[in-house]
Amino acid sequence: MKFCSQCAHPVVFDIPLDDTLPRYICKNCKTIHYQNPKIVVNTIPFWKEEKELSVLLCLRAIEPRLGFWTLPGGFMENNETTKEGALRETEEEAGADIVMGDLFALMNLPTVQQVHLFYLAELKSLSFAPGLETLETQMFTETEIPWDEIAFTSTRQALELFFSDQQKALNGQSRLHSVDLKRLVYPT
Amino acid sequence: MKFCSQCAHPVVFDIPLDDTLPRYICKNCKTIHYQNPKIVVNTIPFWKEEKELSVLLCLRAIEPRLGFWTLPGGFMENNETTKEGALRETEEEAGADIVMGDLFALMNLPTVQQVHLFYLAELKSLSFAPGLETLETQMFTETEIPWDEIAFTSTRQALELFFSDQQKALNGQSRLHSVDLKRLVYPT
Repeated sequence: MKFCSQCAHPVVFDIPLDDTLPRYICKNCKTIHYQNPKIVVNTIPFWKEEKELSVLLCLRAIEPRLGFWTLPGGFMENNETTKEGALRETEEEAGADIVMGDLFALMNLPTVQQVHLFYLAELKSLSFAPGLETLETQMFTETEIPWDEIAFTSTRQALELFFSDQQKALNGQSRLHSVDLKRLVYPT
Repeated sequence: MKFCSQCAHPVVFDIPLDDTLPRYICKNCKTIHYQNPKIVVNTIPFWKEEKELSVLLCLRAIEPRLGFWTLPGGFMENNETTKEGALRETEEEAGADIVMGDLFALMNLPTVQQVHLFYLAELKSLSFAPGLETLETQMFTETEIPWDEIAFTSTRQALELFFSDQQKALNGQSRLHSVDLKRLVYPT
């Protein structure tokens, strides 16, 4: 940020009166421009047939991490709830028809100023198709998942927790997972 | 937003290519200025003595809702986790010494573009003091709470759920509450 978005005057980066952190301040119109973390809303779209459990992944058509696999998700928009946002992203990116379930995990990524939310989402059918930001959509069982080609650390963590929970708590009543990813945004 | 914060050129409000929603766009430097919901991080600071349970509330010294009671909380900052933010706000506003617990509730307030998180927080002592944004700090049992003088609908909802959970689940292992507050930001 270089200029005030209200009056176009150059901003300064300084600690406002009665504050503790530096902010972008306009000395002309007195606006303080706060910058805060953004929410990324995702789903874990799953399908259960007899005893086999699989999840829907999307091959990214856009940067960052073009050509890597991810769960459907994206930035939460104004005027929607977290669950509505996760549903919207799943429809947009994977053309999937889902029943939204509980919030499964909240992950903090303070190095990139993001908070990721993952909702459980049962697929109503196996009919889906890649959206504009997706090259390919495909179902994977736990062993089929291309673990070395997953786009984000948060995605990999969510998938690991999801399959691990299935073995522990077959009644589906797992508690929320709270995870802090303080360093690695991309898996190594 | 009237001007580009990168180059000071006037922005237009239009739907970018390959997007579905209107954004503030700079036709000069091509920056798209996204606007997303903000996270408000709060605690429910509680104290249990024998069978009596009480919570710490703050009398607001600032607008909005100056002179109304609230739980400690505020906007999540960059470079912190949700839990660290809730702890920071509780220290800043109430000078309270707490042990941070589980995430208790996630509330969507799409009319004001906010997502409120409430963490359980056990007080280590009954020593606390109002910070700059607080006129007074005080402990209240459920019946003592000034229910008609609570600042925000989300605060009231969190307090109601907290006391209601205590009667149902005395083991403290309650599940996350997900609440959508689609209309009322201030209690009526």
